[in-house]
Amino acid sequence: MSNKVSSEIINHLKAIVGEQKVLLGDDDLQTFGKDWTRIYTPDPSVIVLPKTVEQVQAIVKLANAEGFGIVPSGGRTGLSGGAVATNGEVVIAFDAMNEIRDLSVVDQSVVCQAGVITEQLQNYAEEHQLFYPVDFASSGSSQIGGNIATNAGGIKVIRYGMTRDWVLGLKVVTGSGEILELNHGLLKNNAGYDLRQLFIGAEGTLGLIVEATIRLTRQPHNLSVLVLGVEHFSSIMNVLHAFQSKIDLTAFEFFSEKALQKVVDHQDLQRPFDSVCDYYALIEFESLTEQELEHAMSLFEHCMEEGWVVDGVISQSLQQAQNLWRLREDISETLARWTPYKNDLSVSVSRIPEFIGEVDELVQAGYPDFEIVWFGHIGDGNAHLNILRPDETPMADFVAQCEAVSKQIFEIVQRYNGSVSAEHGVGLVKKPYLKYTRSAVEIEYMKSVKKVFDPQNVMNPGKVFDL
Amino acid sequence: MSNKVSSEIINHLKAIVGEQKVLLGDDDLQTFGKDWTRIYTPDPSVIVLPKTVEQVQAIVKLANAEGFGIVPSGGRTGLSGGAVATNGEVVIAFDAMNEIRDLSVVDQSVVCQAGVITEQLQNYAEEHQLFYPVDFASSGSSQIGGNIATNAGGIKVIRYGMTRDWVLGLKVVTGSGEILELNHGLLKNNAGYDLRQLFIGAEGTLGLIVEATIRLTRQPHNLSVLVLGVEHFSSIMNVLHAFQSKIDLTAFEFFSEKALQKVVDHQDLQRPFDSVCDYYALIEFESLTEQELEHAMSLFEHCMEEGWVVDGVISQSLQQAQNLWRLREDISETLARWTPYKNDLSVSVSRIPEFIGEVDELVQAGYPDFEIVWFGHIGDGNAHLNILRPDETPMADFVAQCEAVSKQIFEIVQRYNGSVSAEHGVGLVKKPYLKYTRSAVEIEYMKSVKKVFDPQNVMNPGKVFDL
Repeated sequence: MSNKVSSEIINHLKAIVGEQKVLLGDDDLQTFGKDWTRIYTPDPSVIVLPKTVEQVQAIVKLANAEGFGIVPSGGRTGLSGGAVATNGEVVIAFDAMNEIRDLSVVDQSVVCQAGVITEQLQNYAEEHQLFYPVDFASSGSSQIGGNIATNAGGIKVIRYGMTRDWVLGLKVVTGSGEILELNHGLLKNNAGYDLRQLFIGAEGTLGLIVEATIRLTRQPHNLSVLVLGVEHFSSIMNVLHAFQSKIDLTAFEFFSEKALQKVVDHQDLQRPFDSVCDYYALIEFESLTEQELEHAMSLFEHCMEEGWVVDGVISQSLQQAQNLWRLREDISETLARWTPYKNDLSVSVSRIPEFIGEVDELVQAGYPDFEIVWFGHIGDGNAHLNILRPDETPMADFVAQCEAVSKQIFEIVQRYNGSVSAEHGVGLVKKPYLKYTRSAVEIEYMKSVKKVFDPQNVMNPGKVFDL
Repeated sequence: MSNKVSSEIINHLKAIVGEQKVLLGDDDLQTFGKDWTRIYTPDPSVIVLPKTVEQVQAIVKLANAEGFGIVPSGGRTGLSGGAVATNGEVVIAFDAMNEIRDLSVVDQSVVCQAGVITEQLQNYAEEHQLFYPVDFASSGSSQIGGNIATNAGGIKVIRYGMTRDWVLGLKVVTGSGEILELNHGLLKNNAGYDLRQLFIGAEGTLGLIVEATIRLTRQPHNLSVLVLGVEHFSSIMNVLHAFQSKIDLTAFEFFSEKALQKVVDHQDLQRPFDSVCDYYALIEFESLTEQELEHAMSLFEHCMEEGWVVDGVISQSLQQAQNLWRLREDISETLARWTPYKNDLSVSVSRIPEFIGEVDELVQAGYPDFEIVWFGHIGDGNAHLNILRPDETPMADFVAQCEAVSKQIFEIVQRYNGSVSAEHGVGLVKKPYLKYTRSAVEIEYMKSVKKVFDPQNVMNPGKVFDL
């Protein structure tokens, strides 16, 4: 049984966006019908690439009239299946709406169409002596619209926050086909409910983000990177507290010895120092002056004296800072060859050691043959749990076994009042587990909110929750 | 005709919160039935002071069963009539729910009941070597619940953002009487719609905020204050850009010569320097090191050389910094004797000079006898327009004349895509003008969202918009 849209609808779409902007080839359906998850079979009806807000609006109105589902597609780098089309949906890809305009250096703001690539915005900001600070591994292909729809996080959240914090204004087409211009790029606006916030992180289930006014900031200067080795996870928390109470950190990341080993083995990198430790913290900070650098060094020495830190290194050059960063940033890419089963968990920062201990024990006990690699944004309470697939275990078996353990992991998450998805969103992958973070009443309210903006359920149907 | 609740309902309320926590005296009805606006006649039925979340929930359920309206009351320092009870409502005052608990220095977070006073939290943070940065003139009596419900801003927004940015978690009782625990104090949580954001700034129209997990941060060190005089408003923008692109400012405020004159005359303060200028900028920044201070001084010199700044002074001591701050902070109190008609407007920062010029011209032309005083948070694009009442003009005439000009002011605001309420909220005062900032479609969506959380319209009925 096919849910594919009719040829009449396809002709109608061609009339809206032009013949060349409607893709029907198998390759295109495969490419645009999925994200970075590899567990769903793409099966969209058609891909459309609108150029204007009015075209997007016309497609949404057509969807309401004809009753087909729309899946928004950005850079397709999501890890939760939020942009996957498995059910004959019409995919709206924003690749053709990628203009940056209206830079204001006084306002430190710029207007981006939804399809602007994160790196394109980062480079644009840099050319104008400004900085767009949201950064993560997929910034070379992820799009601003998708970043906003998933409230993307990344490696600089401790200093700069999530994508949410950089959205001054949003233009959206709601599920019922109305255009809203939310917040007009204002820094302060307490005139009524901040509907902008509702669309940020809604994963395209309320409407489509077509344009955003993005805040920029001054460029950071003289970033220094420290990598510290610790014996016990709890020591990382002491180090975090010591630094954070004195210095504005731009990053506080961690990774396990296993993560380090694999990165060093596969990426032609050096270990940061000879000592082998269970865990490593990567700390980045801005030192505008020599005194600040000395201050950081004395904190480092304090952490050594207290016995929290076994060994450490501080970058002496930009090149060295970049190399140290690669120890953390290249982990995801390195692990890809083991097709890891990923969980993106968060709890309050202070509970991280206890939480990781408990989850680690559970997974080790249940699956002694699986390698477990931990890394993540410890300064935000966000740990990425990666279970590696042994070469001899077939993919389907592996996923089934991991899913069996997921339920138990999420029971721990629930007990810690944590999140089953710290930064990756819910999409399809985390939909069955949403209830471990959100109460039944909350989920009912979410569904009612969805009905306000998308009464006919045309926007990314089946994502986040089932109606 | 009275909308007062019956004695049966009052007995029911007594059964819920206890006899002593139900206030019926005229003085109490007057005190708890209003905020800092003085244009509405308070007329609540009764004041209740719950101690627990369950009591709040029971009152809301009773309101749904019996069909009475609830007005939440915090520190009653609002300037838009958001906490005014004029129509026989039951006022829930949070004065008896003022506990601070569960401090975590690692998480830099603390749990506050709704009735915790802003200054109480600020002092608590300071005692623990931490900092709660949201600050404004009414921090001595405003309550955290009210701050969150109105997304309070203030004098440090340029560095620290609004109240929204400090709310890690919220416990609310919705209009239909359900308890939601939103976000559990997490830094990162992309599991479903962020309903927390919806309650922040909703002015109690969706539900009651009963508890919040508040983020704290490290204390700032060595704050220096610069006051600079400029001839032309546009020069302030050059100064802002010069400083903001190099230094993380903690404040960038402005006031007019008229504001300065009145403060100096009435508060026993010195002028910052001899030169008389049209406008003044107050800049605050942290100088952790001597070099940073030198950096700021060189920026100051640069601004003098460029001719943007006519004269200036930098604080040499904490006492001097505090005195310079009083030139800005004492304006509101000073103006009170003229019972000013206030407008709290915002536009994009870069458009402020043009916008203020246009509004100023309009008011001067229409009302040549009224004195106009401008001040505000220029770094946020937020200007407070104060029209002073001449002693000989009766209050009612004065308000009527100001309201007549308000419509024209808001037409200018609309043309600039600005906000009719940057930080004071909508309440009753700005309700007729909401349409100048929000489209008709947006307002309809807001009403529909309201119906999701408060289907029987018991929560602060008649505020923000009419259903």
